[in-house]
Amino acid sequence: MNYTLTQIPDRTVKPRQNGLTMAMDKGLSLRQVEDFLSTSADYVDLVKLGWATSFVTPNLKEKLAIYKEAGVPVYFGGTLFEAFVVRDQFDDYRRLIDTYDLAYAEVSDGSIEMNQDTKCDYIRQLAQQVTVLSEVGSKDEAKIIPPYKWIQLMKAELEAGAWKVIGEAREGGTVGLFRSSGEVRQGLVEEILTQVPSESIIWEAPQKEQQVWFVKLLGANVNLGNIAPHEVIPLETIRLGLRGDTFTHFLNGKH
Amino acid sequence: MNYTLTQIPDRTVKPRQNGLTMAMDKGLSLRQVEDFLSTSADYVDLVKLGWATSFVTPNLKEKLAIYKEAGVPVYFGGTLFEAFVVRDQFDDYRRLIDTYDLAYAEVSDGSIEMNQDTKCDYIRQLAQQVTVLSEVGSKDEAKIIPPYKWIQLMKAELEAGAWKVIGEAREGGTVGLFRSSGEVRQGLVEEILTQVPSESIIWEAPQKEQQVWFVKLLGANVNLGNIAPHEVIPLETIRLGLRGDTFTHFLNGKH
Amino acid sequence: MNYTLTQIPDRTVKPRQNGLTMAMDKGLSLRQVEDFLSTSADYVDLVKLGWATSFVTPNLKEKLAIYKEAGVPVYFGGTLFEAFVVRDQFDDYRRLIDTYDLAYAEVSDGSIEMNQDTKCDYIRQLAQQVTVLSEVGSKDEAKIIPPYKWIQLMKAELEAGAWKVIGEAREGGTVGLFRSSGEVRQGLVEEILTQVPSESIIWEAPQKEQQVWFVKLLGANVNLGNIAPHEVIPLETIRLGLRGDTFTHFLNGKH
Repeated sequence: MNYTLTQIPDRTVKPRQNGLTMAMDKGLSLRQVEDFLSTSADYVDLVKLGWATSFVTPNLKEKLAIYKEAGVPVYFGGTLFEAFVVRDQFDDYRRLIDTYDLAYAEVSDGSIEMNQDTKCDYIRQLAQQVTVLSEVGSKDEAKIIPPYKWIQLMKAELEAGAWKVIGEAREGGTVGLFRSSGEVRQGLVEEILTQVPSESIIWEAPQKEQQVWFVKLLGANVNLGNIAPHEVIPLETIRLGLRGDTFTHFLNGKH
Repeated sequence: MNYTLTQIPDRTVKPRQNGLTMAMDKGLSLRQVEDFLSTSADYVDLVKLGWATSFVTPNLKEKLAIYKEAGVPVYFGGTLFEAFVVRDQFDDYRRLIDTYDLAYAEVSDGSIEMNQDTKCDYIRQLAQQVTVLSEVGSKDEAKIIPPYKWIQLMKAELEAGAWKVIGEAREGGTVGLFRSSGEVRQGLVEEILTQVPSESIIWEAPQKEQQVWFVKLLGANVNLGNIAPHEVIPLETIRLGLRGDTFTHFLNGKH
Repeated sequence: MNYTLTQIPDRTVKPRQNGLTMAMDKGLSLRQVEDFLSTSADYVDLVKLGWATSFVTPNLKEKLAIYKEAGVPVYFGGTLFEAFVVRDQFDDYRRLIDTYDLAYAEVSDGSIEMNQDTKCDYIRQLAQQVTVLSEVGSKDEAKIIPPYKWIQLMKAELEAGAWKVIGEAREGGTVGLFRSSGEVRQGLVEEILTQVPSESIIWEAPQKEQQVWFVKLLGANVNLGNIAPHEVIPLETIRLGLRGDTFTHFLNGKH
């Protein structure tokens, strides 16, 4: 830090198991990746190449090399996994991960129908190859999953070998964990937390209000995902109680 | 593309007559233009320097040279044309286009009143000098043009020599083709398409939901405009059915 | 300017006392600062490092050196002042300003309770060290300050030595001067202007509609703040009547 302030909450450091920030790169240029890492390499733990943007992004190998050089693991968005699966190309997907020498992969069913056993089977297979993140929640606004089902899915997927489960929100933050207004489905989150440890979950929270809500509920070291690259620094201040929204939250030993 | 997926819709390639992406540069620096082109040169067909931003942008010649080097034509936003016309400086405008060696120009009446004959006359004059895009629709929320009038204007302007007609939306996507909420005026679009060929129209669609709507209606190779530079890669995935929103749209030979 | 247009309103030039644009840097990289300045150095008068982002931003000294080289003064957001004050570290804050050789500082009470005398005392103390901006308005949506109180606070803070007073809006533009919808509290602004000279006020106006509203009310040379770096060029066109929103505002000697 550039100067000393008292009463700053303890923040985990890399490599983090908790307090993760997962950012979404949806088409940055090589130089933009360098810019991003020059400010945020200490604060970003994982980068997702959003959905299937990697299909059309030029210089993909060079981009991955820049992230690797900075020690920031990269993985393909879950929608890409689904794009291979729906085309019966899962084996191609496994090879693709190796071709690009990735250490993480996401398993999701946000855009396709997949029963729980099948999904857990994909998790098990990929877990032998890489560290797996699995995502729960639909990208379809109309498809509301009740809390007990979220819990059951999360538990099953962690048991199948997922390192963390991700709560779906999309890039915009308007489905899954959130109402279409972006408001948190508070009861859902609280019920999940009675059964699944917070450390095992990465909450997608692209909107500032969502990030604030999770930091207030779960502290500086909550795992948050789908953060825009230029919002990683602002998020770090929210975690530390140094933005208006969480300013008084960590004072006087309150948390 | 970086890997092979089956069932990807055919996408036109440059130089495109259809499937155009027109992006809006509203003040990028030279290096930001280079960054943009390094990821998106294959996907962007035209760049508009938004409204009259070219008036205040430093290094304009250098910027144009970078776009030219990448083979991406640039033109001044229609509001600049109107700014010259309203000041009785149309001849200056014609010279300006030559000074900067531009090959495209836009004729619009989004901020001023102009009768149809006058507008078509401007199109005819400019068409002798450059390739003309003409824009239909007002920037004034209160000024609703009925569908039959849109059709009449579009036909007249194409006949007068416009290469394409542009459906107005502003940078924000809240007027012209759209309601103030950003929602598409669906009946308007459908009625236009009964009379004007889709290939002759560039639909301004800055918001993701608008882009999705047009791709679902008109396919991967719909002409879309006013795309923010950092949204050109995401748009390309929408066109290819590789983002959640259009994920199932092109599967199983549906389109 | 790149070409000549008649009927462009007179615009003050740097160093400006009026017509100021204050931009907010919430974590730009060094190269992004260079990019920003390459397009906007003539148009931006002050840069605020948003709230306490300076705490976590790497390369802070290098960043400040780039701004200094371009002749653009930088100051820490008021929330950082408050973070030091609430921790009884005000003396550390004074030293910090000297350590980084800053010429401006902001005094605010957006996130903490502070009575008027205390606030004015901080202004007096800092005014002996640097040029002081003081901010009026709460970041708390629920805390509505009535107009007479805004006026009283602004007058007292200017008398205490503030160079300008800032009307609070946050990064998003949804508190203080604005309703939670972002709409201007028009009666508030008009009442303030009956008692406090417009030149003494910087209006935070991050949203385009807010910028347009102030330019229409107070002209090309209104002082505006919390402008995103990539919106400085667009704002300049709004000031000059060269964007749709203010297109007819300065024509025919109307203003």
